Amino acid sequence: MTPSRIIIDCDPGVDDAVAILLAFAAPEAVKVEAITTVIGNVMLDKTTANALRVRDLAGRADIPVYAGCPRPIMAPIERKNSVHGGDGLGDIDLPAPVTATESEHAVDAIIRIVRDNPGQITLCPVGPMTNIALALIKAPDIIPLIPEIVFMGGAAFCPGNSSPAAEFNFMIDPHAAQIMLTAGIPLTMFGLDVTAQALITRPWMDAVEAASGAVGQAAVAMLRAYGHGDPCLHDPCVIAHLIDPTLFEGVDAWVEVETTAPLARGQSVAAVAPRHRPGHEPNCRVITGLDAPRLFTLLAERLISLG
Amino acid sequence: MTPSRIIIDCDPGVDDAVAILLAFAAPEAVKVEAITTVIGNVMLDKTTANALRVRDLAGRADIPVYAGCPRPIMAPIERKNSVHGGDGLGDIDLPAPVTATESEHAVDAIIRIVRDNPGQITLCPVGPMTNIALALIKAPDIIPLIPEIVFMGGAAFCPGNSSPAAEFNFMIDPHAAQIMLTAGIPLTMFGLDVTAQALITRPWMDAVEAASGAVGQAAVAMLRAYGHGDPCLHDPCVIAHLIDPTLFEGVDAWVEVETTAPLARGQSVAAVAPRHRPGHEPNCRVITGLDAPRLFTLLAERLISLG
Amino acid sequence: MTPSRIIIDCDPGVDDAVAILLAFAAPEAVKVEAITTVIGNVMLDKTTANALRVRDLAGRADIPVYAGCPRPIMAPIERKNSVHGGDGLGDIDLPAPVTATESEHAVDAIIRIVRDNPGQITLCPVGPMTNIALALIKAPDIIPLIPEIVFMGGAAFCPGNSSPAAEFNFMIDPHAAQIMLTAGIPLTMFGLDVTAQALITRPWMDAVEAASGAVGQAAVAMLRAYGHGDPCLHDPCVIAHLIDPTLFEGVDAWVEVETTAPLARGQSVAAVAPRHRPGHEPNCRVITGLDAPRLFTLLAERLISLG
Amino acid sequence: MTPSRIIIDCDPGVDDAVAILLAFAAPEAVKVEAITTVIGNVMLDKTTANALRVRDLAGRADIPVYAGCPRPIMAPIERKNSVHGGDGLGDIDLPAPVTATESEHAVDAIIRIVRDNPGQITLCPVGPMTNIALALIKAPDIIPLIPEIVFMGGAAFCPGNSSPAAEFNFMIDPHAAQIMLTAGIPLTMFGLDVTAQALITRPWMDAVEAASGAVGQAAVAMLRAYGHGDPCLHDPCVIAHLIDPTLFEGVDAWVEVETTAPLARGQSVAAVAPRHRPGHEPNCRVITGLDAPRLFTLLAERLISLG
Repeated sequence: MTPSRIIIDCDPGVDDAVAILLAFAAPEAVKVEAITTVIGNVMLDKTTANALRVRDLAGRADIPVYAGCPRPIMAPIERKNSVHGGDGLGDIDLPAPVTATESEHAVDAIIRIVRDNPGQITLCPVGPMTNIALALIKAPDIIPLIPEIVFMGGAAFCPGNSSPAAEFNFMIDPHAAQIMLTAGIPLTMFGLDVTAQALITRPWMDAVEAASGAVGQAAVAMLRAYGHGDPCLHDPCVIAHLIDPTLFEGVDAWVEVETTAPLARGQSVAAVAPRHRPGHEPNCRVITGLDAPRLFTLLAERLISLG
Repeated sequence: MTPSRIIIDCDPGVDDAVAILLAFAAPEAVKVEAITTVIGNVMLDKTTANALRVRDLAGRADIPVYAGCPRPIMAPIERKNSVHGGDGLGDIDLPAPVTATESEHAVDAIIRIVRDNPGQITLCPVGPMTNIALALIKAPDIIPLIPEIVFMGGAAFCPGNSSPAAEFNFMIDPHAAQIMLTAGIPLTMFGLDVTAQALITRPWMDAVEAASGAVGQAAVAMLRAYGHGDPCLHDPCVIAHLIDPTLFEGVDAWVEVETTAPLARGQSVAAVAPRHRPGHEPNCRVITGLDAPRLFTLLAERLISLG
Repeated sequence: MTPSRIIIDCDPGVDDAVAILLAFAAPEAVKVEAITTVIGNVMLDKTTANALRVRDLAGRADIPVYAGCPRPIMAPIERKNSVHGGDGLGDIDLPAPVTATESEHAVDAIIRIVRDNPGQITLCPVGPMTNIALALIKAPDIIPLIPEIVFMGGAAFCPGNSSPAAEFNFMIDPHAAQIMLTAGIPLTMFGLDVTAQALITRPWMDAVEAASGAVGQAAVAMLRAYGHGDPCLHDPCVIAHLIDPTLFEGVDAWVEVETTAPLARGQSVAAVAPRHRPGHEPNCRVITGLDAPRLFTLLAERLISLG
Repeated sequence: MTPSRIIIDCDPGVDDAVAILLAFAAPEAVKVEAITTVIGNVMLDKTTANALRVRDLAGRADIPVYAGCPRPIMAPIERKNSVHGGDGLGDIDLPAPVTATESEHAVDAIIRIVRDNPGQITLCPVGPMTNIALALIKAPDIIPLIPEIVFMGGAAFCPGNSSPAAEFNFMIDPHAAQIMLTAGIPLTMFGLDVTAQALITRPWMDAVEAASGAVGQAAVAMLRAYGHGDPCLHDPCVIAHLIDPTLFEGVDAWVEVETTAPLARGQSVAAVAPRHRPGHEPNCRVITGLDAPRLFTLLAERLISLG
């Protein structure tokens, strides 16, 4: 199989970090062309530093990192997010970055890489979709050049986590999510419907830690500090899907995001039945189920393999 | 136990009809002071005729029926609802009503009965909440006189049925639902969270039919024509709760309805965690679970008891 | 000319009071069938007492007064309105009412009077339209029986006064205004477009006071305490139009009210050009101009005539 | 006086073209650092070609032109705009461009020029504000470096032209307008309040044409084909203000744009009175008046001076 060539657009974030490491550990399936960063779990300076720290940890200075948007499209709402610790990576004293970002802006890197590799680059946003949306507004010519977007965000058939209605990434920048969803690009959605099932356990962490080298041990250390004791592996699901899509199942739906409503801001509204989406064909594969034991086996093997 | 004195505000509707019959069959637990009707599953003339037909079927001309609002508060949205058949009661050729409604409007009957029996009358809306809302706007002095509203409507933690986001009753009149929810009256909510679990089966219908007289047989005949083969007993849950609250379990939440959003119109947004409802104490007990075998046993016994 | 038979639905309020007096002073043009009250400039208990006080002042115990809704349809917004003084009539020590309201609710009085006089009753709401809206929801059969609604509310082509976008009556109950506007009844709108031109002056008040008896003097006393030195005769314009429509000019438009937007809540959006109202014929005559000298001459003569 | 160094962000458009020519004709007051283009009056390919054609007409190949966003932030609404003719410049057979744009994207040119000249560059958007908004999202560090934005857009105290509530530029991209308005940069707004007063007349055009060379004659030719016989010089007001601010007068207000409402989308809501903007100081000087004779004299002199 030819590896999927991907851009990981992220806001590390512990689960983002694990997603990046999983991608590094699956070279037969995934080739990371770039990591781009965005405001989200923590502020942009931290998400960018964290992307570099994870790259340094894995010894992958060959993967370029581009800093992106430090704010969502519309005025940010007030929120607090402490599930990733103060530094965004669980405060485990991961060293400060020894490498630096590229000078190009993430939005422009996305546009350039897609244009230079038409039909080749799968976008994998696992944070707020601000960078993706700005690329689509600034250069809509890239739309037909993107074969697929596989993203973490939304909650199609279950409540949200940032509000009763909205998942965190869609809540932070609902306009960006809506721009991505309605662009006409094939979409695969990993929302809370599935990622809330990817619940990591203490025995699993103990086993991975015992069998791992420095990288896997750091990953487990982050995970122990993550999620207030209830850690869902949201973002790694996106990468796992590229490695083994048989881990997951889903339904086709027309998905949009509520951008206007005070109560439902950021909610993903997913219409499956044709009567609920008159005039719309499905625009998105909404992943709803996973084979959790096989997912965690895969993840353990790959983290351990990083040494 | 003293029976709960209730007003059933409904839009029959097959499951409304079964709810009414169940209330008639539980005199030790429920005393029906009035049946009030509203537009909903079918137009008002039909929901009113159907309330009379069900009353006639059960030989309960002593229960007054009052016709209510023929439209929701704001301009109605386009919709089709065929799950109750053309006449709203499954087209089983139930006889036309031989009795008539009272001349008083449902809104005024609700106001009058509550005022005449302060602290005594539980409201049980199982259709769009238009009548309830108009009573609260017209005569807010009744608010402290109502001990509880137990209603069917909304979908707190699961998708809707009239749209991806909204349950039917809340979709038809989201403004009325919001007025009811924010009035300050203790609330118990039977939304799709629980009522979608009350799924009737063919063997159960066969058994009830075999053991019933004319009333129970008519109920089963309606149910066979209802719900497109997937009949949820939404409305009877409200009455069953008054008969045996141990059948159900739930959580406390702050619930509001989205009235402004194009995608999320009519959605019930239920905040359980304190961080999702700053400044709000729970206003509603949201029922989320039921003991289905016991519920259907109860319902069978009571329908059969009607002869 | 046959007098117009009208119901004045109001929230007195100084300009409401003057409107009522003007109607009393024009029996050849206007026959007041009822006065109905609503929350608005002050709370319902005060607007109702004030309607009675004005009726008492004019010695018109023959005109029935009905108290209506003490709250708007949706949850009230925070606001302060001090332009009518603490008691709503300028705190001029007008005597407490010596007469009482009818027992019937204003909403029901409106429905009953319209039904009893099909095609005969012009509704003149000059406060929030809550009573009118509830009558239309509760009994939409009255819609074809109402020949016209002439109302004070909105600001079609100019800024609002309660917010940058909204006039007071429409701001207090935008949903009620929208229900009225979209009911299909012929409408004539006196918004701020015209009523802000009806600016009373000190010399005019001096002249009326000097020539008047007790009633006119009380009216002037109220007006001196009204409007923070900048008193617009909003509500009397509606009555003046029934007396002499040649005082005014206007345009036909499709008018709706924004009910959903945080910034524009209560705004009247008036589409005149066909390209701005695709699919809609005008539903409303929007009055935009007046002959102010003739209006004030008319008003002076009539107030003086009351003695 | 030191000339204002400006970027004209535009969607030519006849009045945009005249604004550009006016800027070229006032070197003592205005130094055009760049012209950036955006979708608006016509599609981006045309607005960009038109910017080049106007530059060619004036022989100003020294002024760089950068193409910007071909779409607004959120999905475009349906609309037609024929007031600028099919080609956007009145179909007067202005020659195709003989020069080309720079390769840099307008959004990036704006960011770079502002960063390279901190505190020196006044932005003059006279089309939809998409480029400006994207620059602010992508690189909010430029916010404190921009001394002022003088823009054409909105309708603070009067009806809109693209809808009853909204002016064209704000209607096309209300989100971009809102991002600009709330960024914290000093603002001067030329909305329909003032620009609708800048109504060009046939005698004026005749006089300018008779006295002009090729450039002024082309400008007049465009204007004769513009505006359906009722041509408002919207965009040139922005440049005229930089040349002679005494031509205009205005008020300070807190201005925001409605982005969520179906009826009021794109409306500028301008709060002048402190009670209408609790918690907000004015963010914008809203220009409301002009000295039309002096404006047209200025414009005539300058167009004639171009030869």
